[in-house]
Amino acid sequence: MSERFRPKFDSQGLLAAIVVDHDSGDVLMLAFMDDQALAATRETGFAHFHSRSRGRLWKKGETSGNVLTVREILVDCDQDALILRCDPAGPVCHTGADDCFFRKLEGEHLVPLS
Amino acid sequence: MSERFRPKFDSQGLLAAIVVDHDSGDVLMLAFMDDQALAATRETGFAHFHSRSRGRLWKKGETSGNVLTVREILVDCDQDALILRCDPAGPVCHTGADDCFFRKLEGEHLVPLS
Repeated sequence: MSERFRPKFDSQGLLAAIVVDHDSGDVLMLAFMDDQALAATRETGFAHFHSRSRGRLWKKGETSGNVLTVREILVDCDQDALILRCDPAGPVCHTGADDCFFRKLEGEHLVPLS
Repeated sequence: MSERFRPKFDSQGLLAAIVVDHDSGDVLMLAFMDDQALAATRETGFAHFHSRSRGRLWKKGETSGNVLTVREILVDCDQDALILRCDPAGPVCHTGADDCFFRKLEGEHLVPLS
């Protein structure tokens, strides 16, 4: 029998969600969800998160138009982390980069990935 | 000029670290690091995390032997999330699965990925 989905939110009421490109498998961004963001994501099919800086529900792309259409949700062993396999409507990062992980650590500096 | 590495820990002193297989690019697990875990990872080349349940530094694989050799660290736009590109010595998940994301959400249940 399959296990029931019982997402485990942390002491802040959040769990981490990794956004992965459904086609390429590349990691695009990481954000946090509370129960409201998870429910909104599942109801609408568009990724919603909880903005820790603004303290509110945030539909990814609500301003830029670069929404994320969620194709599949994977759940980890402890049910405290998710992967959202998404089709991005445009660049994911607020900097305009395709994804948020565009630099690597070299010594004490961040170097653009070529 | 390249930007200086200034990791941004949250109010709990943590940042999220996504472990990705260096060869396949697959997401293997997600865990959290405090400054001690990040320093230990960089000093030793093996992934260390902060166990939120046990409240202590945790070298991944310290019991199982399934350590993670870190080949590259990517840093996101806000410096509050990392990708560790790793070579895993064995199955990553404590369940014995190759990675922790081995189930997908279907309705209210978790279904094994085939």
